[in-house]
Amino acid sequence: MHEIKITTERKTQLVNITEQVQAALGDPNGAAAALVYVPHTTAGVTINEHADPLVAQDLENALQKIVDDGWDWKHVEDPDGPNAPSHVRASLTSPQILVPLRDGKLALGQWQGIFFCEFDGPRDRKVFVTPLQ
Amino acid sequence: MHEIKITTERKTQLVNITEQVQAALGDPNGAAAALVYVPHTTAGVTINEHADPLVAQDLENALQKIVDDGWDWKHVEDPDGPNAPSHVRASLTSPQILVPLRDGKLALGQWQGIFFCEFDGPRDRKVFVTPLQ
Amino acid sequence: MHEIKITTERKTQLVNITEQVQAALGDPNGAAAALVYVPHTTAGVTINEHADPLVAQDLENALQKIVDDGWDWKHVEDPDGPNAPSHVRASLTSPQILVPLRDGKLALGQWQGIFFCEFDGPRDRKVFVTPLQ
Repeated sequence: MHEIKITTERKTQLVNITEQVQAALGDPNGAAAALVYVPHTTAGVTINEHADPLVAQDLENALQKIVDDGWDWKHVEDPDGPNAPSHVRASLTSPQILVPLRDGKLALGQWQGIFFCEFDGPRDRKVFVTPLQ
Repeated sequence: MHEIKITTERKTQLVNITEQVQAALGDPNGAAAALVYVPHTTAGVTINEHADPLVAQDLENALQKIVDDGWDWKHVEDPDGPNAPSHVRASLTSPQILVPLRDGKLALGQWQGIFFCEFDGPRDRKVFVTPLQ
Repeated sequence: MHEIKITTERKTQLVNITEQVQAALGDPNGAAAALVYVPHTTAGVTINEHADPLVAQDLENALQKIVDDGWDWKHVEDPDGPNAPSHVRASLTSPQILVPLRDGKLALGQWQGIFFCEFDGPRDRKVFVTPLQ
C-alpha cells in the first residue's frame, strides 16, 4: 500500500491526482487494477474530465447545490466546525475508486483524470494506492 | 466469500457493520483488500464517520431530501410496496465498497466506519465480504 | 481485460449489460471478483433492479432532477455540445462497479442487474471487464 500526500486550499476543491497515483504504483508487476482509497470522512475521490478545468469547478458547485448548507443538520459539534454537508458530499462521491491497469498503466479513458474531492478544506490529506492482482 | 446477516428496523437506516466485516474476514492471509457487497436493490453501503451517530442520521435525512418521495415515480407495483425512491437512494450510495487491508486489518481512517444503508426497511438483509489479493 | 461495445440511443439511458459482462468474463478461472469499468466522463455504471424496466426509467428521471440542466454551468464549450450536467450525473453514479464471483458467475442478488448509464447519448461506448483474484 502506497501513500500520497495532498494539501488542499479551499473548502470544496477537486484536485487532479492522476500523475501521483500512477507514480505511486511504480512498476505494479502484473497487477490488474489499482485501488485509490481516501481514509477521510469529509473527502472522496471521483473520475471525470481533466481537459477543461471548468468541469471540476462545475462538480464542486453542483455538489454544494445537491447538498444544501442550509438544511437542518444535526451533526454540529465537530472539532473542525460544522461540516455535516461535507460528510454527505463525501458519501455522494465515494471513498474509493478502482481503475484497471494495462501494461502497468492506469487504463483511463482519453478524457479521464482521477480527482481527490476535498469537501472540508483547507487540510492536509492522504490517499492510499493499492495494486490488486 | 463470507456472508453477514443484518436485520434493519426502520425504512431508512444506516447500520455500522465495521466489526462484522472485520470478523467475517477472519485471517485474510495476505489479501490486499476487502470487497463489501450488498446483493439488494433498495440498500447500499457507504463509509463515513462512526464517532458521532448524528452523522449517520444526517446522511439518512439528506438522502430523503436529495431524492424526494413526492416525485412522479413510475415504478409503483413492487411486491414490497411503492419504493422507487429507495432504488434511487441505493444507486446514489453504492452496492459495494472496496477497503485496503494492512496486516489483515481494514485500513480505515481514524473516523471511518462501514455503514450498511437500508432504504426500504425493516427487512432481513445480507452482505457479502470477499478478500482480494 | 475484456471490452464490451454498446451503442446508446437516447441522451439519458440505462442499458442492462449483465449478460454481456458475464459473457466477457468467459471462464474466469478462480477469480474472486469482476471489475466493470467505464472509460468515459459522461457515462457511468450502476447496479439496480432488472425485473421492472420502470425502475431504470425512474433512475434516469431522478438523475435529471437531482442535477438540473438549468443551473449556471461553466463548462459550455465541449466539442459534443453543452454537457456539464452529464459529467456530474456520471460522477454521482460511478465509473466502476466491483461484483464478487461465485463459481465463475456474478454473485448478483435476485433482482440485481448491471446497468450502463448513458448521460450524453446517443453514442458508441465501451466498457472494460477485468477479473480480479
